[in-house]
Amino acid sequence: MALSTKPLSGMRQRFPEQFRVEKFVTDVLSGSSVSAGFQEYDGPVIEPLALFAAKSGGELVGRQSYSFTDRGEREVILRPEMTPSLARMVASSGELQLPVRWFSMPLCYRYERPQRGRVREFLQFNLDILGSNSLAAELEVILVLNGIMKSFDAPSSIYRIGWSSRRFMTEALLRCGVKQELHSGVFSAIDKKDKMKDEAWSDYLLQACGGDKKVAGTVVSLVSVESLSDSWLVNLMAESPAFNEVQEFDLLLEKTGISSALFSPGVVRGLDYYTGIVFELVDTGSENRRSLCGGGRYDNLVGLFGAGRISGVGFGLGVLTLTLFLESYGLIPESVKQAAPADVYIAVASSSVIADAGLLAETLRNSGIRVMMDVSGKKLGKQFSEASRNRITQVITVGVEEAETGIYKMKYLPDGKVTAGSVEELIGILK
Amino acid sequence: MALSTKPLSGMRQRFPEQFRVEKFVTDVLSGSSVSAGFQEYDGPVIEPLALFAAKSGGELVGRQSYSFTDRGEREVILRPEMTPSLARMVASSGELQLPVRWFSMPLCYRYERPQRGRVREFLQFNLDILGSNSLAAELEVILVLNGIMKSFDAPSSIYRIGWSSRRFMTEALLRCGVKQELHSGVFSAIDKKDKMKDEAWSDYLLQACGGDKKVAGTVVSLVSVESLSDSWLVNLMAESPAFNEVQEFDLLLEKTGISSALFSPGVVRGLDYYTGIVFELVDTGSENRRSLCGGGRYDNLVGLFGAGRISGVGFGLGVLTLTLFLESYGLIPESVKQAAPADVYIAVASSSVIADAGLLAETLRNSGIRVMMDVSGKKLGKQFSEASRNRITQVITVGVEEAETGIYKMKYLPDGKVTAGSVEELIGILK
Repeated sequence: MALSTKPLSGMRQRFPEQFRVEKFVTDVLSGSSVSAGFQEYDGPVIEPLALFAAKSGGELVGRQSYSFTDRGEREVILRPEMTPSLARMVASSGELQLPVRWFSMPLCYRYERPQRGRVREFLQFNLDILGSNSLAAELEVILVLNGIMKSFDAPSSIYRIGWSSRRFMTEALLRCGVKQELHSGVFSAIDKKDKMKDEAWSDYLLQACGGDKKVAGTVVSLVSVESLSDSWLVNLMAESPAFNEVQEFDLLLEKTGISSALFSPGVVRGLDYYTGIVFELVDTGSENRRSLCGGGRYDNLVGLFGAGRISGVGFGLGVLTLTLFLESYGLIPESVKQAAPADVYIAVASSSVIADAGLLAETLRNSGIRVMMDVSGKKLGKQFSEASRNRITQVITVGVEEAETGIYKMKYLPDGKVTAGSVEELIGILK
Repeated sequence: MALSTKPLSGMRQRFPEQFRVEKFVTDVLSGSSVSAGFQEYDGPVIEPLALFAAKSGGELVGRQSYSFTDRGEREVILRPEMTPSLARMVASSGELQLPVRWFSMPLCYRYERPQRGRVREFLQFNLDILGSNSLAAELEVILVLNGIMKSFDAPSSIYRIGWSSRRFMTEALLRCGVKQELHSGVFSAIDKKDKMKDEAWSDYLLQACGGDKKVAGTVVSLVSVESLSDSWLVNLMAESPAFNEVQEFDLLLEKTGISSALFSPGVVRGLDYYTGIVFELVDTGSENRRSLCGGGRYDNLVGLFGAGRISGVGFGLGVLTLTLFLESYGLIPESVKQAAPADVYIAVASSSVIADAGLLAETLRNSGIRVMMDVSGKKLGKQFSEASRNRITQVITVGVEEAETGIYKMKYLPDGKVTAGSVEELIGILK
């Protein structure tokens, strides 16, 4: 029986035309990171299960994991996210290296039901600063995030960076009358607000609040706040250090002109390890409902490895989700989609001149010209068609005479114009 | 108990200084491929076990595989190599696209005992042409391989491209008196020649030859041949089409000046699916015994997917093995190892000017300058040390006065010289 021509469901397979688009996206992500002094790293795809069991949250290592026992009887997992591996690397490299500013483009794995923008094998861009307690770190990562969107020419009207603070929300929930032991459940409920129907969500929140309608109502008021100068909020949070921090950060964002950033107390992010400022990037339109990016400050991850307390702040961004967003707004340039794989095609008139064609190809390549040499062995007409199919505009023909004289004819396919010249002359035209 | 700060044995973890070296290597591999009109693709890491069971050879899917049953009861494997996934992609994209010239940089997995140059999780560069039966395809991939080595400034004395042909060897073995049913075992024995002690190998070969000493002796003569004009060989292979092809290819290599290529009948390559020309890249010195690269022509892979017969030729090259080779010959430039992560460091004199520093950083970044903005919140002296530690030579200080006047001081750390100027003036110096 013939094998299937399809990959497994949810797996990442990229033909060259798809790869070009993905690379356009990842190049901008890398470029923006490098521009801000971040350095690239990578960790293993296969990790000990215990690394994620500790902090990522039960769903990731339970129902959604690719975990198995390897041939050496180790319980392993294909990483569902990058941050725990990053924390381990920072723990092992010692305090002298702090602060670190690192980014990565890891393949990650989650066993979820595939749907638009959600697959099982995905590239997730990660950018983090570890070893700084200053809000300058939060500002810096959000500057990079905003810089990424500007590099894609995304107008600030089509995306929003919603942000809040776990520390602030913890204090606010206490002041709303939510007991500490209910916070985890209430955070989960708040995180699911946009993913559920209104009524179902109200019931869910009420239950998370221990069935107390008054408390649940106050929580609804809290997550509905749209401004830090809201008088109800200011009154609720009087003399709260966490509220001061939130106000301070809001001022930093305003002063640096990040108009897309908006204080949103409903943003709490799903991962269990966030402790301070949290944020997410969302499409303001309706086509892409999943958040493009989520991040925040985490204080207690590196300590898991026995190192001292090292605080981090960073974000993860799904490359596929971002690509779909860019495509839905027409922000993937046609020049990327239609790029030709070479500057010139070398047509080979007969098999007796293959070596001559190869030598010519090498000379041109050494001059920085991208050369596709014919390997089909077909007739010249078909070779010209092959150049066209590849959107290559120039074709040099190598025959016995050309090989002897060193004078070649080059045809510009769009207008059919033919130029004859030496290798040096053709290089001059092609460069 | 604290979690281990080490990754699992044999897994790929790259700190930024290691990542830079790896990226230097992979950039050359990509660049050489793009220069020859090859396009990048990628396939899934998680593949159906059946995809590899069919053709890769028993060892890869048996003792050396990372295989498991996923949550949907699928028998899956972490790809041990790329070629079967490539064959599937070509089969699914249809004949109209042929020939394809593709390359990839996949992560691959083999459960082997880790040692120098051999790990369990590794990047393996792959470059292939599918849909061409011409020797021009073999020539083209070897031109790229040779071009890669030249791009690394590797002198041709330190590496050798040994090559032979499976078809030729099949005919030669028959003429040496080795029955067809013994060929697979004899190929295995030939492949292990350099990995075993002489005496043990002689015994192994004798057994593979069915215990026939005369036949085994002839096979030893065959694999010891060093030239295609060897009179014993010419006599043995009279009027053999496969021998003609080998001679033709030898002439192509000679004419294109690939002096590092050497006909070597002992090169058969381990993968079961090769059918024509095979080749490998080896270190001529003694430090790196593993072949850096192996490849050849495979005729019967794409057919597994029910498509017509599509012949391919290509090679796989281990990025780690190549990196070790380059390092042992001093071919990784110091400038790569010592690269600074930014062109300028912005020191922040007090927390009241963080936003001003952020705005300055963004202006410089938009001009193409790589800027590391301080996030430590430490005193200025420590911030200057932080710039030094990162090998960044220029430091701009932002304080209240600078934020007000827009005139900044920039210090060049190597000589301590200070320049004062507007943002535009500093950009002029930094670019």
